[in-house]
Amino acid sequence: MVDSIENANTLDSAVPLVGIVIGSQSDLEVMQETCDQLDEFEVPYELVIASAHRSPDKVHAFAGGAYQRGIKVIIAAAGKAAHLAGVCAAFTPLPVIAVPMKTSDLGGLDSLLSMVQMPRGVPVACVAINGARNAAILATQILGSADDVYLQKIIDYKQKMAES
Amino acid sequence: MVDSIENANTLDSAVPLVGIVIGSQSDLEVMQETCDQLDEFEVPYELVIASAHRSPDKVHAFAGGAYQRGIKVIIAAAGKAAHLAGVCAAFTPLPVIAVPMKTSDLGGLDSLLSMVQMPRGVPVACVAINGARNAAILATQILGSADDVYLQKIIDYKQKMAES
Amino acid sequence: MVDSIENANTLDSAVPLVGIVIGSQSDLEVMQETCDQLDEFEVPYELVIASAHRSPDKVHAFAGGAYQRGIKVIIAAAGKAAHLAGVCAAFTPLPVIAVPMKTSDLGGLDSLLSMVQMPRGVPVACVAINGARNAAILATQILGSADDVYLQKIIDYKQKMAES
Amino acid sequence: MVDSIENANTLDSAVPLVGIVIGSQSDLEVMQETCDQLDEFEVPYELVIASAHRSPDKVHAFAGGAYQRGIKVIIAAAGKAAHLAGVCAAFTPLPVIAVPMKTSDLGGLDSLLSMVQMPRGVPVACVAINGARNAAILATQILGSADDVYLQKIIDYKQKMAES
Amino acid sequence: MVDSIENANTLDSAVPLVGIVIGSQSDLEVMQETCDQLDEFEVPYELVIASAHRSPDKVHAFAGGAYQRGIKVIIAAAGKAAHLAGVCAAFTPLPVIAVPMKTSDLGGLDSLLSMVQMPRGVPVACVAINGARNAAILATQILGSADDVYLQKIIDYKQKMAES
Amino acid sequence: MVDSIENANTLDSAVPLVGIVIGSQSDLEVMQETCDQLDEFEVPYELVIASAHRSPDKVHAFAGGAYQRGIKVIIAAAGKAAHLAGVCAAFTPLPVIAVPMKTSDLGGLDSLLSMVQMPRGVPVACVAINGARNAAILATQILGSADDVYLQKIIDYKQKMAES
Amino acid sequence: MVDSIENANTLDSAVPLVGIVIGSQSDLEVMQETCDQLDEFEVPYELVIASAHRSPDKVHAFAGGAYQRGIKVIIAAAGKAAHLAGVCAAFTPLPVIAVPMKTSDLGGLDSLLSMVQMPRGVPVACVAINGARNAAILATQILGSADDVYLQKIIDYKQKMAES
Amino acid sequence: MVDSIENANTLDSAVPLVGIVIGSQSDLEVMQETCDQLDEFEVPYELVIASAHRSPDKVHAFAGGAYQRGIKVIIAAAGKAAHLAGVCAAFTPLPVIAVPMKTSDLGGLDSLLSMVQMPRGVPVACVAINGARNAAILATQILGSADDVYLQKIIDYKQKMAES
Repeated sequence: MVDSIENANTLDSAVPLVGIVIGSQSDLEVMQETCDQLDEFEVPYELVIASAHRSPDKVHAFAGGAYQRGIKVIIAAAGKAAHLAGVCAAFTPLPVIAVPMKTSDLGGLDSLLSMVQMPRGVPVACVAINGARNAAILATQILGSADDVYLQKIIDYKQKMAES
Repeated sequence: MVDSIENANTLDSAVPLVGIVIGSQSDLEVMQETCDQLDEFEVPYELVIASAHRSPDKVHAFAGGAYQRGIKVIIAAAGKAAHLAGVCAAFTPLPVIAVPMKTSDLGGLDSLLSMVQMPRGVPVACVAINGARNAAILATQILGSADDVYLQKIIDYKQKMAES
Repeated sequence: MVDSIENANTLDSAVPLVGIVIGSQSDLEVMQETCDQLDEFEVPYELVIASAHRSPDKVHAFAGGAYQRGIKVIIAAAGKAAHLAGVCAAFTPLPVIAVPMKTSDLGGLDSLLSMVQMPRGVPVACVAINGARNAAILATQILGSADDVYLQKIIDYKQKMAES
Repeated sequence: MVDSIENANTLDSAVPLVGIVIGSQSDLEVMQETCDQLDEFEVPYELVIASAHRSPDKVHAFAGGAYQRGIKVIIAAAGKAAHLAGVCAAFTPLPVIAVPMKTSDLGGLDSLLSMVQMPRGVPVACVAINGARNAAILATQILGSADDVYLQKIIDYKQKMAES
Repeated sequence: MVDSIENANTLDSAVPLVGIVIGSQSDLEVMQETCDQLDEFEVPYELVIASAHRSPDKVHAFAGGAYQRGIKVIIAAAGKAAHLAGVCAAFTPLPVIAVPMKTSDLGGLDSLLSMVQMPRGVPVACVAINGARNAAILATQILGSADDVYLQKIIDYKQKMAES
Repeated sequence: MVDSIENANTLDSAVPLVGIVIGSQSDLEVMQETCDQLDEFEVPYELVIASAHRSPDKVHAFAGGAYQRGIKVIIAAAGKAAHLAGVCAAFTPLPVIAVPMKTSDLGGLDSLLSMVQMPRGVPVACVAINGARNAAILATQILGSADDVYLQKIIDYKQKMAES
Repeated sequence: MVDSIENANTLDSAVPLVGIVIGSQSDLEVMQETCDQLDEFEVPYELVIASAHRSPDKVHAFAGGAYQRGIKVIIAAAGKAAHLAGVCAAFTPLPVIAVPMKTSDLGGLDSLLSMVQMPRGVPVACVAINGARNAAILATQILGSADDVYLQKIIDYKQKMAES
Repeated sequence: MVDSIENANTLDSAVPLVGIVIGSQSDLEVMQETCDQLDEFEVPYELVIASAHRSPDKVHAFAGGAYQRGIKVIIAAAGKAAHLAGVCAAFTPLPVIAVPMKTSDLGGLDSLLSMVQMPRGVPVACVAINGARNAAILATQILGSADDVYLQKIIDYKQKMAES
């Protein structure tokens, strides 16, 4: 469990490779699964709470500086008119994974369409509504294209799934 | 008809009160109606083409500086994962009117939900899909809360509608 | 908390600037947030329960007389085939903010489309499903176009959000 | 074909039993089928163009006075945030048939939900999107509950359909 | 409360004017409101449980014989692929009111579309999802076109609503 | 091409194994693909035009007598509030394949939900919107469970698809 | 109740005629109804848990070998992007019945569209969302086209439904 | 323009890094944009037409062998019940980008949900409906996490977009 969110991985000496940003504290309940899966894959990550609407400068700083900090993939989770992933994608050349949060009224269809329907030129990589674990797996697959250690973790994970 | 978009109102000596931003050149076909209606109401406006995703800094500059330029209301039109209005709203204390553009696949339901479902703290004022003329009327109504001249124009407009 | 609904602001000597109308008593649970936020912004308001279908004359009187009473913005909240905001807009030159109520069967998609898809000539300013707090913020932003005191409150509110 | 809309049935000496109201001139293309079917059933009707939003007083007068004029059933056709049928129902004790118009963006789902999802206490009788002919048949069925001549026309019509 | 469903009104000497058919026993929880409202309006009714799919002959007998039994209006309530109202309408010249039942998966959108989108030639009069009370009011309005006693009840009901 | 619909297969001495019923003549344009595919598989069939709403007795006769005529599978195609397949299923113990027709307003979502969401006890086998060819393939697969000749045709067909 | 899932019917000496595959253990709660209904009809079946995505080879083996094992019909149940039925259909000439599972966010609309909208050439026979019992009935109807014993069970079942 | 699809890049001496698979020849019209954008970025790719349903073994071979062939990212485009991306993801540890094709009836909502709503354990990276160009950009971003040459191309591309 992540105790102190902003410094989630401070005890980990590794430089974060994945930058997770969530739109509000309440999204952490779902997104903890992303952290857990990255921990299982031993992928170092950072986690920041920032809103595309309430704290746009913080998002700008987070996404705009991610590449220089050594981040390889961004994961952005938000709900309703969920602009967080798209706004990150506007400010970074890195691949951005979008996790649309389930909503209490429209079930997350609003979050999904707000994330996946990105206009030409600025894609995000959208996973399922509340697809927190899958976001971690996809991030690790992307890291795997540069580092076979991570690809092997995916191969092992898929093997284990097929057997269980 | 707007010939030179960026300088749409240069011949007009009045300071723009409404700032219109559209996500792409192709949205102008629909949004011309906004310009026409503002012209009819003699509301001075400026029109900028800027994308929340492709040119975020331009949007930031447009929205962030609108208040200082004397703008009273922003109108933002975009389609698909339409973040333009929300991103403007993040950078300005001014009211932001959102015009969701009709899309060729989902009919504009994606644009609508991406605009109207803004999270707590940062509203936009959403009108109908392709509701270009209504955006102009709503902007003029908002101006009318400060200036009775504009309110009178609305009263006259409604009177004319009821009669025709 | 609003105790006596019809006289919600009677102890407040200020003339109401915002007129809130809700379709039924049960909507008050959600719409209390609108009142709370307006209270926080020190915006004087009145609150009326009236239905576009069950008590149309009351709605007509409320909306038709709002401008003369000094109201600057109307907020209308209703659910299902939610005509309340549109009916108000038909009878007033003032800007009308629509709050679609979440519904138990379709999640509020019915309320949303019934409110936001207003035909040409008569706009409403629609916020998110159950977007009660945002309605208050948007109303204050509109007041801000006439009175910098309110604009400053929005600026301060956004500042506080960005910091928290 | 209806030439002069407002006086559609002036050559018919019969008192109109069905009052048709359409939200805009453009709806007539579809609603002509209602007129044609009523003509086929020899049901006298009147047809008025009035908008719940643009000309609310005209709608009020039309619906509010329908019972006194001898109208037995109202048919209201409108599109988008289609409040016309509901507004008529607010002002009359007569049954109101709602015809949701197909829309170019959402296919008429907006019109349908705006009409059919009426809140408790004030029903409308909704037919299919663009169900103009069915509105006429339903109106005639309702007239049939008071006058067997009309019921017989329905019986004959159904017989003819089954055979063709 | 209806104790013995099949003979709901046997103690009532009046001939039933409204025939209610519900697709399954479980729909009675919602449809009790129809009975209550008809009781309030003193409209005699009969209530039958029959399924368009499980007991089609019973539905055929119910709807096909309704006119001869003196029924003036049919109310049919069903859920999911809700064919009950349409099947009744196929077998009777009487007006048929459709009540789409809320469903646990799609919220009743399936029931609604299965009922309201009737093809040309055979209309039903659809009310809102779970609109049980409105079905009773609409049925009484239809009776009112033949009998002013019922119309007066509607006028009184609307008056009472407007006042409360 | 089917010239004379009612007697589509009169030159074919084989007893029909598949009974196709379509809701209206206009559905034949799409459903011709079903006929073509059955012809290709050399499956004898009959084709009838009958509407669950306009000619319910004809549907009853068609479906109720299908088993006795030697029919093994029924294919029913209809649009909008598409009750045809469900009504057939009510009157026959045979498997019924449902083909929801695309509609001009809701794209066929109405037809699909009206067909696939059958209540407990009376299933239909629903294929895709306008899935005319697939209906023929599925019918042949069902025939294949009794007759290996038809199963072999499916095996060959799948082989050919994989190769082309 | 099925105790040991993989060997559900081992005490039954009959060769399984229906092969049931479910995407995850959690689907068994709903799909138990399929087993119960097949038990009631005395149809021998096998039940396997296998995922099109997590254990594709197991699905391939299950579906690819079904015909040789004597299976006559496959029933596949899965949720979300529910590919299980389609993947089975790709590997077998047998008819495949698809049961879309209700989902917590979109109510099962995702499962339904992922199953029913199969492209040309490879149909599945889709039943309602969570239509577990209907899948068993449809499977038995298909068996009935080869064996009158099963058809008689359907006839008896329908008779019992009509009477109850 | 791609002349001979299967050997699209044979003149290019580079080993393909991106493997594109499309469900049918007709998808190429849209997916040509993917090829064009990859050409612009000088990313070597291969393109195969294979269907998850009609030629599952070909898909298995394509996806299962992609890693050994040196492919780093897979792009899969399909429509309706679009299983192609998910099936690829089942057979490879590589990241799989999904492009849901617009459909003529539901606008691509079916393709989108069939692709994006992948169950836990096997993600795909979904882009917008018909988001062919964005798929190429996202693939290049993923390549960029291993090779700065590709990251630089993205940086340049974004710069050019912002300026134009």
